[in-house]
Amino acid sequence: MRIALDVMGGDHGPDVIIDGARLALQSNDRITELFLVGNEEEIKAGLAKVECRDSRVKIIHASEVITMEDKPMDGVRRKRDSSILRAVELVKDGKADAIISSGNTGGIVAAASVRLRRIEGVEHPAIATVIPTEKNEFVLLDAGASVECEPIHLLHFAVMGSIYSQYILGCKSPRVGILSNGTESHKGTALTQGAAALCKLTNLNFVGNVEGHDLFNNRVDVVVCDGFVGNIVLKTIESLARGMTSWIKTELMKNPKRMFGAMMAKNAFTTIKHRMDPDAHGGAPLLGLNGVVTKAHGSARARAIMNAIRVSSESVQNKLNETIRQEIATVNQRVPAKA
Amino acid sequence: MRIALDVMGGDHGPDVIIDGARLALQSNDRITELFLVGNEEEIKAGLAKVECRDSRVKIIHASEVITMEDKPMDGVRRKRDSSILRAVELVKDGKADAIISSGNTGGIVAAASVRLRRIEGVEHPAIATVIPTEKNEFVLLDAGASVECEPIHLLHFAVMGSIYSQYILGCKSPRVGILSNGTESHKGTALTQGAAALCKLTNLNFVGNVEGHDLFNNRVDVVVCDGFVGNIVLKTIESLARGMTSWIKTELMKNPKRMFGAMMAKNAFTTIKHRMDPDAHGGAPLLGLNGVVTKAHGSARARAIMNAIRVSSESVQNKLNETIRQEIATVNQRVPAKA
Repeated sequence: MRIALDVMGGDHGPDVIIDGARLALQSNDRITELFLVGNEEEIKAGLAKVECRDSRVKIIHASEVITMEDKPMDGVRRKRDSSILRAVELVKDGKADAIISSGNTGGIVAAASVRLRRIEGVEHPAIATVIPTEKNEFVLLDAGASVECEPIHLLHFAVMGSIYSQYILGCKSPRVGILSNGTESHKGTALTQGAAALCKLTNLNFVGNVEGHDLFNNRVDVVVCDGFVGNIVLKTIESLARGMTSWIKTELMKNPKRMFGAMMAKNAFTTIKHRMDPDAHGGAPLLGLNGVVTKAHGSARARAIMNAIRVSSESVQNKLNETIRQEIATVNQRVPAKA
Repeated sequence: MRIALDVMGGDHGPDVIIDGARLALQSNDRITELFLVGNEEEIKAGLAKVECRDSRVKIIHASEVITMEDKPMDGVRRKRDSSILRAVELVKDGKADAIISSGNTGGIVAAASVRLRRIEGVEHPAIATVIPTEKNEFVLLDAGASVECEPIHLLHFAVMGSIYSQYILGCKSPRVGILSNGTESHKGTALTQGAAALCKLTNLNFVGNVEGHDLFNNRVDVVVCDGFVGNIVLKTIESLARGMTSWIKTELMKNPKRMFGAMMAKNAFTTIKHRMDPDAHGGAPLLGLNGVVTKAHGSARARAIMNAIRVSSESVQNKLNETIRQEIATVNQRVPAKA
């Protein structure tokens, strides 16, 4: 297993990412090569800092970074020597099996789409995010790669999300739903209604429309929507979860009695915190491209990077993209040509 | 102040709604007439049960109900003697100033749109919901009245939401944002970008694009989106808030030590519960129509109904619709004709 890790573009600089690489090398002996892509001097300094001398590490110098300020396509066109492009090219040239980056999401999507091309039959890639609930976890896609979609794209997201849920999350028969403004079949837009009609033609365990109320109720394992809606929903969930946690903390710290109670009940909160930990998956896969591409959180620290590398290597190991290619070919045969 | 209350269609039957009417009459002496609209026998029985003999109560018999099973427009066409249509007609005929219903949302929107017509200059109505956060509360609109929108509609939602925030929630200069998949101005769809361009031509305190991350961060007071996105966001928020609360409860009940801690810290949770209480507003106004229309929760009980009546009477008192009419006329003059 050969991993290309873009060490630039994260919120906390290259050192924490390099430290994540060190953790991954320690815990994952399936890794045969780990390419650290970015500014060579900074990488050398980072490796020295964390005392990593693993011979599987290869440094690939890149002089530029696509930052949050760059418009994605502009960045990819102008910054030919950017770390994300160099990392993607390692996969394109057959030198690496997977890419992980915590840089500008749009930049990753653009670089990977342009250089790796889409899996045959897939028209748009999708970012899949795994969201934990009390009783299950669900895959939400697309979380922002493809803002304007047609029904066939949502069908492909449904297929890819279902495969991800099965092969990576171990859900046996993932319940797939189209996110809409109500569960009734007449609800929705032309896009969601068209997508629902297509999903019914497949072997997916399709449960029809799902609405916001279903998300945290263990009613669905794969939630399908366009990248505009998905990005809003994902960020709303993150924002509310953080907001509620901070609010509860503030209230618990307001007087000694409450503080004492909170201390006694601490394990309850710790359990939930662990389950909701965004670092557990470390990142979100970009599905539908010829290569395993994972977007790590911008704020990812070492453990998150290590986990992103672990999940990426599982995708490679499980030949996820080969399964996607086959299943997409199958559903494309079943849908009417004009869809 | 004359209120028309549709007592049918709530999840808990007419009795709790009639009890809400009783509470409203007790606490609100601006009410001069309160029409209870629905099955006359059930209303009489309900009034007897809660021992309400207030002379301001008038019973308006309606033999039908638009249920959750009815498609809204079908229901309005077929069920001419439905309680919601009868209630709306009281306003249309100048006999009442405001309508409150906890029935089928689509039915309320359809009945009110057909019978009351839109405020001059407004093309689509919007359901506005008030969502509490730790540090502020924001108005989200449209939460589901208008699924397919054009930029001008979102502009009108922005204007109406801003007025609601000012006049009903007491926010002096509401920060208005367009909900998008990122704060950068190039993010969004043709709809949101068009709407943002129009908002910039107005006197609104327009903060540009807001994303999901901004919602619970006290960055925005009026969140504008189409009814498809708004409905999904609202229900996702409700679902996650309920899900997290239930999850925390489960964890806190897992052993005696945690239970004891939870008991000590109980007030912290009670404070948050009170602030997040959906019954505090009792319902969501349907803005943009010639009449004050409020959709109460399907599960609304007496206190929620009382509060919905209180908020509705504030809208009447503050001549909300007159302000909306004036402001819409002003912004419509500023926007290019083709928008």
